[in-house]
Amino acid sequence: MALAADFKNTAAKAAPEALYRLHALVQDDLAAVNRVIVDRMQSPVSLIPQLAGHITASGGKRLRPLVTLLAARMCGYEGKRHVPLAACVEFIHTATLLHDDVVDDSALRRGNATANALWGNEASVLVGDFLFSRAFQVMVDDGSLDVLRILSSASAVIAEGEVMQLMTSNDTATTEAAYLQVITAKTARLFAAAAEVGGVVADCTDDERRALFDYGLNLGIGFQLIDDGLDYAAAEATLGKTIGDDFREGKITLPVVLAYDRADELERAFWRRTLEQGEQGEQDLARAIDLLAKHNAIGDTIERAREYGAKARATLQGFEANRFQQALLDAVDFAVERSY
Amino acid sequence: MALAADFKNTAAKAAPEALYRLHALVQDDLAAVNRVIVDRMQSPVSLIPQLAGHITASGGKRLRPLVTLLAARMCGYEGKRHVPLAACVEFIHTATLLHDDVVDDSALRRGNATANALWGNEASVLVGDFLFSRAFQVMVDDGSLDVLRILSSASAVIAEGEVMQLMTSNDTATTEAAYLQVITAKTARLFAAAAEVGGVVADCTDDERRALFDYGLNLGIGFQLIDDGLDYAAAEATLGKTIGDDFREGKITLPVVLAYDRADELERAFWRRTLEQGEQGEQDLARAIDLLAKHNAIGDTIERAREYGAKARATLQGFEANRFQQALLDAVDFAVERSY
Repeated sequence: MALAADFKNTAAKAAPEALYRLHALVQDDLAAVNRVIVDRMQSPVSLIPQLAGHITASGGKRLRPLVTLLAARMCGYEGKRHVPLAACVEFIHTATLLHDDVVDDSALRRGNATANALWGNEASVLVGDFLFSRAFQVMVDDGSLDVLRILSSASAVIAEGEVMQLMTSNDTATTEAAYLQVITAKTARLFAAAAEVGGVVADCTDDERRALFDYGLNLGIGFQLIDDGLDYAAAEATLGKTIGDDFREGKITLPVVLAYDRADELERAFWRRTLEQGEQGEQDLARAIDLLAKHNAIGDTIERAREYGAKARATLQGFEANRFQQALLDAVDFAVERSY
Repeated sequence: MALAADFKNTAAKAAPEALYRLHALVQDDLAAVNRVIVDRMQSPVSLIPQLAGHITASGGKRLRPLVTLLAARMCGYEGKRHVPLAACVEFIHTATLLHDDVVDDSALRRGNATANALWGNEASVLVGDFLFSRAFQVMVDDGSLDVLRILSSASAVIAEGEVMQLMTSNDTATTEAAYLQVITAKTARLFAAAAEVGGVVADCTDDERRALFDYGLNLGIGFQLIDDGLDYAAAEATLGKTIGDDFREGKITLPVVLAYDRADELERAFWRRTLEQGEQGEQDLARAIDLLAKHNAIGDTIERAREYGAKARATLQGFEANRFQQALLDAVDFAVERSY
């Protein structure tokens, strides 16, 4: 299949080992983050750690906390504050996942049953609220108003991005600019915040903090572009990723925006029927994938991701070249070259 | 109807005028709070102010921000910080209402269509998240870690209370103690936080802050007890309150706990059928109301509310007797003697 090949060409670079190597470099820190996550999700209300444990244990990549840890270390930080703050970032991410799955009515995430499928939408909404509140409690314990400002702003922007996504859903007239606005808000802003928080604990200058923010923002955009490409092309990957979720939900992602833009009238009628009117038959996903291939929509999505990856790399030029900087560069490779 | 009479006996004291009088005392402050609410719910994503505006404009009593304002003023505060912080309290309350209505699948609130009925569950979840994040941004602007600690803890406890409620829902074996734990967490903790925040801005001593916390906690428990009584007895009130919502949702509130506790086997079978199995016929709400009357369950619920009201009043003894203190005492009367 042509689309899967777009990703397979880069498979050597994008092997899971790349992620393991990143994890290995800050292995003790990450283990400490996991302990904080488990500790701070506890509650006398047993359903909370049960449900939260399900989602945090279900094989996430921990990319966002990793960015916080690596950014702090790259900037010479040798203390311990980055650990609970990296856990906050993951809590906020987890809360948004729980709410996303309710909003999208998803049954599977990373190949496992979603929390809402197992315990109902009600519990997922409320446990998301709990984790979100808990994140702020952990930040208050740390005591930095800068960190609280960065992560409360990011959270508000994420919610705005999700609402924007809801409003552009099923709308084939969505432009590339509108799509970029959505993914910048819903995904990239938390990566940006994750990186900047690392800079805050390391007492970075304002310029350095801005550079870290830009690193995370560009990394996050690249990451989401690949995610949206994989949704039409990850069939041959082995990590529980299923294809066609976005198509079934009528989400307008860049591959569709590009293919629609380049389509003839007959093809546009197909996209409108399947994504706007939500009338989908058995063969429609295959037809969608064919149309994406015809217009090189996945290839160009990957190309865009690489451009953002290059921008992310460039933001790190002013920092000391150490192994943590190298890891942040490798994280970009992973995010934009991965096939899962 | 006997139950409505339980409330009507106190109707003279509980007239809406009581609330208007409270509002009048801090009218400028409350107007400023409303301006902050409208200002800070703005977003370039138009659905957010639209949906948030619907719920904040739909006739809430603004009791929680009122408590913050009055507590600060009672303690001699003459600045302006209490205004945005009172708005934070209302934002958190509004966010929980939006999520509650999704969790309960409610179609009406205060006699108006709920946000989820108008815009869907998805938007309600996400706009709730936005308001919650925005509340923390406003707190960060204020800059008090104490306030951030108080309101992030309250938010976590509210979520725990809601999950607890979900777990006791439909369970007729719920005890009075378990019920009290739920309403303390889901309702009273935010009133407690609202009062304590007033004390923080007024630079109160630790003892005074504890007293204010206890004031809010007892006020909130009394308030929720009356709310749960009114759900079976507010038919004759005119303020858009409908009866039977809790019954239809299988919520186990104190009136039911008391009636079940005092029931014979036949009556227990009725409660189990209607609340546990959710099998309800046309006459069942009327039958439930009869059983509550037979066992004086509403009267005793009101009695409990008054006991908590008395505790709330007692917490204010150590404070200067001024018109704001009197208003906080009046707020207790309103909360536990109201018929709407």
